[in-house]
Amino acid sequence: MHPEREWKPVIVPESFDQLVEILKWRRDVRRFRPDPVDAELVGRLLSVSQMAPSVGYSQPWRFVLVESEQVRAELRANFEAENEAAAAEFEPELGGKYRGLKLSGLDVAPVQIAVFCDMATTTGKGLGKRTMAETLQYSVVMAIHTLWLAATAAGLGVGWVSILDPESATRCLEVPESWTLIALLCVGYAEEQSQVPELERLGWEKAEPAAGLVVRR
Amino acid sequence: MHPEREWKPVIVPESFDQLVEILKWRRDVRRFRPDPVDAELVGRLLSVSQMAPSVGYSQPWRFVLVESEQVRAELRANFEAENEAAAAEFEPELGGKYRGLKLSGLDVAPVQIAVFCDMATTTGKGLGKRTMAETLQYSVVMAIHTLWLAATAAGLGVGWVSILDPESATRCLEVPESWTLIALLCVGYAEEQSQVPELERLGWEKAEPAAGLVVRR
Repeated sequence: MHPEREWKPVIVPESFDQLVEILKWRRDVRRFRPDPVDAELVGRLLSVSQMAPSVGYSQPWRFVLVESEQVRAELRANFEAENEAAAAEFEPELGGKYRGLKLSGLDVAPVQIAVFCDMATTTGKGLGKRTMAETLQYSVVMAIHTLWLAATAAGLGVGWVSILDPESATRCLEVPESWTLIALLCVGYAEEQSQVPELERLGWEKAEPAAGLVVRR
Repeated sequence: MHPEREWKPVIVPESFDQLVEILKWRRDVRRFRPDPVDAELVGRLLSVSQMAPSVGYSQPWRFVLVESEQVRAELRANFEAENEAAAAEFEPELGGKYRGLKLSGLDVAPVQIAVFCDMATTTGKGLGKRTMAETLQYSVVMAIHTLWLAATAAGLGVGWVSILDPESATRCLEVPESWTLIALLCVGYAEEQSQVPELERLGWEKAEPAAGLVVRR
């Protein structure tokens, strides 16, 4: 007998199904209800997100709660300009379809969070990022995804706005020079919940067939 | 009365606590048991990971199951060379401490998965990545993180190996030219489970104080 074979995982089996349930309902939300989100819940989401993995335990995530109406208006104008520039680059028919999509919730979302990576952090002493330095930004992406899943589990919606000029967005947020913008997030209660991505429902894109995504070597 | 105020989230409240439980036990694992992982479970992890968000619904993740002993040996040698090069760059005392860490499970992990981003995919029609093109790679990072959490919930450990020369790792995996390496993952049953990162337990780095990570604008 091999006693080590009796090893059992710590996590309860139901948690796998619960996680899949959260993943099923996690959407990129652009249509928010104006209802406020409890500040204590926002604080919990921010601390849960810091349980994310990070290269060398560098924890390079930095969060900016965007509350000022003036800064919000600047970010909204930034999105609108870049969104129109993107629409203008498509062929007319696709451009028309693009303009029919709603691609940010900056107009209504009660909570708006800009997430940065501190490129100058010495935490972690550089471990793990010598040949793949981009793992620092990737660590912040995992914190964002953690926040997204926690928000979904709490019944909230999150939308990631990437249609922005990142330089001018960073400038208007007045953050330290070493901070690089990773995402601007909208958080709030969604107008509706769905298991199907909005871009799929509106016919912009379909799910990739699983075959072809996995190869063996 | 405002009937819309009665809106309730679809997700059950316990799922938040279950998610936090998974996050607590999710570690970067470098010490694996040699026990095999059921192939059907590996397949489930790969399909669950594809529920991750992606910019413009581009789904740019590509997975390579590394099974050949020869390719595994090449990747191990790649890691060993880069790990020694990293150690040599530290001051002697820190270098000694670094050499005492175990930073990859490539020696024992029964499942090894290289994860790539297809930079040339047209899926998503470029939506959302015109000004922040790196969101394509970030989408793959969220798929990796999804796989990591699903593995944790299934009682498995995952380790992200980034101490690699990505170009030669990519070359030996013989993937299409448009694929960029995001991560090499080790997957298997961990020798031990812990709620504390190994780099913290071994005194390499500490948790960041939460104050200072969140600012308001």
